[in-house]
Amino acid sequence: MKSICGVEGVAAWGVKEGKFGLALIRAEGEAAGVFTSNLMKAPVIRLMEERIRRGRLAAVMANSGCANAYTGERGYRDAGEMAAIGAECLGVSPEEVGVASTGIIGRYLDLPLIRDQSRRIAPLLARNEEAETRAARAIMTTDLSEKHALVKRETFSVGGITKGSGMIAPNMGTMLAFIYTDAEVPAPQLRDALRSAARRTFNRVVVDGDMSTNDIALCTATGMAGKVPLPEFSRALEECCRHLAVQIAMDGEGATKLLEVTVRGATSEEAAATVARTIVSSPLVKTAVYGADPNWGRVIAAAGRAGVEFDPENVDLWMGDGKESVPLVKGGEIVVDLARAKSLMQGKKVVFVLDLGSGKDEATAWGCDLTEKYVEINGRYTT
Amino acid sequence: MKSICGVEGVAAWGVKEGKFGLALIRAEGEAAGVFTSNLMKAPVIRLMEERIRRGRLAAVMANSGCANAYTGERGYRDAGEMAAIGAECLGVSPEEVGVASTGIIGRYLDLPLIRDQSRRIAPLLARNEEAETRAARAIMTTDLSEKHALVKRETFSVGGITKGSGMIAPNMGTMLAFIYTDAEVPAPQLRDALRSAARRTFNRVVVDGDMSTNDIALCTATGMAGKVPLPEFSRALEECCRHLAVQIAMDGEGATKLLEVTVRGATSEEAAATVARTIVSSPLVKTAVYGADPNWGRVIAAAGRAGVEFDPENVDLWMGDGKESVPLVKGGEIVVDLARAKSLMQGKKVVFVLDLGSGKDEATAWGCDLTEKYVEINGRYTT
Repeated sequence: MKSICGVEGVAAWGVKEGKFGLALIRAEGEAAGVFTSNLMKAPVIRLMEERIRRGRLAAVMANSGCANAYTGERGYRDAGEMAAIGAECLGVSPEEVGVASTGIIGRYLDLPLIRDQSRRIAPLLARNEEAETRAARAIMTTDLSEKHALVKRETFSVGGITKGSGMIAPNMGTMLAFIYTDAEVPAPQLRDALRSAARRTFNRVVVDGDMSTNDIALCTATGMAGKVPLPEFSRALEECCRHLAVQIAMDGEGATKLLEVTVRGATSEEAAATVARTIVSSPLVKTAVYGADPNWGRVIAAAGRAGVEFDPENVDLWMGDGKESVPLVKGGEIVVDLARAKSLMQGKKVVFVLDLGSGKDEATAWGCDLTEKYVEINGRYTT
Repeated sequence: MKSICGVEGVAAWGVKEGKFGLALIRAEGEAAGVFTSNLMKAPVIRLMEERIRRGRLAAVMANSGCANAYTGERGYRDAGEMAAIGAECLGVSPEEVGVASTGIIGRYLDLPLIRDQSRRIAPLLARNEEAETRAARAIMTTDLSEKHALVKRETFSVGGITKGSGMIAPNMGTMLAFIYTDAEVPAPQLRDALRSAARRTFNRVVVDGDMSTNDIALCTATGMAGKVPLPEFSRALEECCRHLAVQIAMDGEGATKLLEVTVRGATSEEAAATVARTIVSSPLVKTAVYGADPNWGRVIAAAGRAGVEFDPENVDLWMGDGKESVPLVKGGEIVVDLARAKSLMQGKKVVFVLDLGSGKDEATAWGCDLTEKYVEINGRYTT
């Protein structure tokens, strides 16, 4: 098992028919969620914000192909109806079905299709590798590969599936993440741990800086492995979310390289995160990474416009491929060996480490390169 | 005359040799400047911030091909030396020479080349159409066409040249603007008028959201046309800057279409500008414009993440080509005619008007589409 089915008490299945997919995941327990902060949130997000307050889920149901966003009151009713369909098929209470949608916005859900798919897959729910892979595939849109993570500890596990391409795109780029643990964690603690983990992982993935109307991450704790120390659980949850987040970045629309930026020496973690996110969002940095062009000045210039105070004359900058690294700037002085730097940019991963020299905090953000393919994918989407 | 030479008291010339250009503009008078707010500002910006406090310029000298940025104390001395070279060639005080640089960062100025170019063109300074065009061409980098504006009023004129591609790129994308008027305007009023105009024009152009280390706009008032009412001058200056700003957006790297977004019904002009800038910056909106894809949901979703409060259920959205327009959303209801919308996106200009329905203020921002060509231009720059 490589993700959710590695967790005690989880069964899943999924179906994908053309653009339209449906995943069903059955797992009872305490639950928490984090949601998009886009003002234009989809009705399904409103519904889930209300329902997750109960702190309990019995199942999760997610469709791809239609985001049911910008669909007003009808969209809200449709999301409730979708939950009712899942509840009926699985024999649970509709209030305990988490629903999520991803796909094109401004269109209504095809409820007859969802009912049909749900009825067909509900009897197939299982706990094996095929099951978790089918569920992960069912929620994919422009994703090229399914995304799995499983973090095993001695006494418990945390597993998740996700689809990208990353807290970002109002269309097929919505991020959905469904995470499970067999640790016994009460809903309030689960919520705090999930928020903290999401802040450090999903919220630090930038594919293009856009933010979806439908982003959602849900975590259910089946409790079957019993109580565990909360800090240990939180670390495992964050590790699981980080694995998922990196996969989202790597599979960014049109991406050929993963971009990882760590900012150190900041006066706060949030300041470090702001600078790191600004760098991974910069189209100029992203295109330089694509072209394996060691144009480090773009990294420095992006940091300079992040809105965080630091002394530009006192920064250090390194670049690497995740294994080796070379210094580019030391104490504000250029020390770059361009040929060496370029050779380190040929692989699948490009890492920048920037030390602002003004404090002790750090943060990492992930992104990807910007390619002609991104333009091609997004230039002709509706039609 | 179509730009700076339409203003009494201005003479200019320029030379462009490969990537390396130099423009000289002679015009004495009260002067003001606005500068990049990037922390990583080039040494030449520091020098000019100091010198412009005198409120007077006798000439402007700008080179392209090397930004003299991230070059520390040597860069600062080199910028001063560049001003001294211009001063010597033109017979004015070095403190009254405005200098500006654009090009690759992390490299030192080629002062012998600048001296040579300066000596050759100083004797050629003239006040005619060829002169202003040569000056505009000399400062171009990745720009495909020179950018001119001349606003004529009954008693005075305001003219300017600029290069893009727009408050944005730390390399060849630096924005330089040199604006002249023959109105008599004292330096403090000139500064206020220039700041206000830049805020509403240059600061609302987004090509890729990056911000240069070298952006600078200078305005000199020769006073030869005598006193004019300040509000009238301010309007003319803003109009001139707007013409220049739109040209920068149209000539954005790889651009095929101008994108204009007006946000109305906001609680403040700044809120409207924030939403408008977020929309023109959105890679998803930009790629949709490129593909003539009427994917209006991306406009709404970008507005929703701009950080400005409004009621998503109460917005109106129109789209047009600058001549005709069609409603897409009215009072939160989708009213789009997709075929008609698509046909309006075929031209060189795409306009969105979004009414937030929450106030009386408005603002316009300009950008361009995102194309494969942008990626190609920026993916292989240094090498």
